[in-house]
Amino acid sequence: MKAVAVTPGLQVEDPRSFQDTERTVPIPGDRDLLVKIEAISVNPIDTKVRRRSPKTPSGSDVIGWDAAGTVVAIGKGVSHFTLGDHVYYAGSIQRPGANAEYHLVDERIAARMPQSLSFAEAAALPLTALTAWETLFHNFQLPLGLDSLDRTVLVGASAGGVGSMALQLARVLTNAQLIGTASRQESSAWAKSMGAHHVVDHRSSLIDQVHEVAPDGVTDIISSQATDLHFSEYAELLAPRGKITILDSPTSVNILELKGKSVSLHWENVFTRPVHQTSDMKVQGRILEDVARLVDSGLVRTTLRQEIAGINAANLRTAHEVLESGTQIGKLVLTGF
Amino acid sequence: MKAVAVTPGLQVEDPRSFQDTERTVPIPGDRDLLVKIEAISVNPIDTKVRRRSPKTPSGSDVIGWDAAGTVVAIGKGVSHFTLGDHVYYAGSIQRPGANAEYHLVDERIAARMPQSLSFAEAAALPLTALTAWETLFHNFQLPLGLDSLDRTVLVGASAGGVGSMALQLARVLTNAQLIGTASRQESSAWAKSMGAHHVVDHRSSLIDQVHEVAPDGVTDIISSQATDLHFSEYAELLAPRGKITILDSPTSVNILELKGKSVSLHWENVFTRPVHQTSDMKVQGRILEDVARLVDSGLVRTTLRQEIAGINAANLRTAHEVLESGTQIGKLVLTGF
Repeated sequence: MKAVAVTPGLQVEDPRSFQDTERTVPIPGDRDLLVKIEAISVNPIDTKVRRRSPKTPSGSDVIGWDAAGTVVAIGKGVSHFTLGDHVYYAGSIQRPGANAEYHLVDERIAARMPQSLSFAEAAALPLTALTAWETLFHNFQLPLGLDSLDRTVLVGASAGGVGSMALQLARVLTNAQLIGTASRQESSAWAKSMGAHHVVDHRSSLIDQVHEVAPDGVTDIISSQATDLHFSEYAELLAPRGKITILDSPTSVNILELKGKSVSLHWENVFTRPVHQTSDMKVQGRILEDVARLVDSGLVRTTLRQEIAGINAANLRTAHEVLESGTQIGKLVLTGF
Repeated sequence: MKAVAVTPGLQVEDPRSFQDTERTVPIPGDRDLLVKIEAISVNPIDTKVRRRSPKTPSGSDVIGWDAAGTVVAIGKGVSHFTLGDHVYYAGSIQRPGANAEYHLVDERIAARMPQSLSFAEAAALPLTALTAWETLFHNFQLPLGLDSLDRTVLVGASAGGVGSMALQLARVLTNAQLIGTASRQESSAWAKSMGAHHVVDHRSSLIDQVHEVAPDGVTDIISSQATDLHFSEYAELLAPRGKITILDSPTSVNILELKGKSVSLHWENVFTRPVHQTSDMKVQGRILEDVARLVDSGLVRTTLRQEIAGINAANLRTAHEVLESGTQIGKLVLTGF
């Protein structure tokens, strides 16, 4: 089968960073689906793993999480899927990735994709939807409906992949007040279209801007990038017993800034459940089923913004370049081999 | 009235660190109780505030939280208490402290003390009971009864004041497995008497000792002291999506150690609600009412271990010395002026 391999540790400008290659089709293990990949999307974790030297978490040089495709074989013990199913999922960082014609995924972390979407539109969703869902409903424990009327969520970099899904899910399922951050006119407009009640400019100080729309501060913050830069502002803005979820890897935050208000700091690592094979691992498949229902009923839409035909080394290099520029709005998807 | 003042910034050995003095009896404000103090207990926060230079959080040189006494006057708007009530409470760090004959406390954070206890026995409880309760049930959200069968809580320094209350409350109200840490025979025996199923020695590496009784690691950790020292072990022992609550002020922990398992880090600052006058501030009074019921029904007992007659400068110096030695088991209480 065709596959795109990476050489970990190289800059994206280096033409050796991606290579088109041929690999053996993998054989499904217990509870595995073998999926013919139709579309993949790229996320910051891809560029992070590619840049990380000398090896990937899985040991494989084929990376990529976030896929949509067709089930073409199933392993022993698979009970939830059958051949021909169209599925979407984020997979596990400790297994070879989805940048290949055929790919294995544990059925517990996959779901049938929304029927109303193309493969490309579906591939944009799983990793960011899972991250947003686990952040909002597992970390923040936002109550559904009117019970969240007293909550205000600040979504950093809200036009990005996770931000776009967090805004949509929170807007549809809760009554929390939603404040996004963005810098450009275009990203601000996108964040509002995704559900933000207000968008503030993260190039300026956030304190006054946020207090203008949320005088008592915010109860919950999602920080997906530049956490080091904004942490002190976040600490000041958070309400007593508030919560912050961090998605990047800050190195200089002072956690004592959270002590006076008993604020809690949460990580959201979408791979925690599959990597540690937790007993509640199938929660992720169920979340993706719920998201599919929300999409098919018209309440949530795909965050696909840019589609590139052809999953190959050249196009993946382009995709990583776009992602590393930090200006991506919504999601970028590659389709077909 | 008599009061004991401190000179912030001095070592406990310095005789000027505490002084017996005379002060005006304070006048109750809206929702305040004026309490004639019968007994007080000392906590690590007292020694921390005393050593902190140049001033206390309240601006007053009378410190001390954790008190039991009699209501002798009430302010406008007090609806829950009447003259003669015996109350116990931890108060607010931003108001003058309880090391004085008369003391003001907001009625929302006070409760009638357990009827079965003396003032000294009651004064041992409030600050540690609130800290333990908020940690177990607000931070960890331990479910009551059998729903917590899959939880394992590691209680650091479990013979201390907070540890003793956390073990008792968790043992009585949940079915979580409880592992305490202690170093001496005497503290280990005390922790077991408070409810620990197992006690491990925190002078040695915790990993093997804890894994012996909890092969899958622990779901929740309370770290009340030496968090810097044990943090990496805690990160290794915590289960995926586990929780750690920190009570001291570590300066060198690497929070990225918690990322791979999406572990959350919680602070428990007992003064967050009263200092920020949160809308749910009365939760603390309700917790103390629940604790009083548990005590009066015989399910929880006082953690009083040492009682010193006479609230004065000399005895408070002794009390702070004992506390700073770090070997205190249970609680130390001073009674009467």
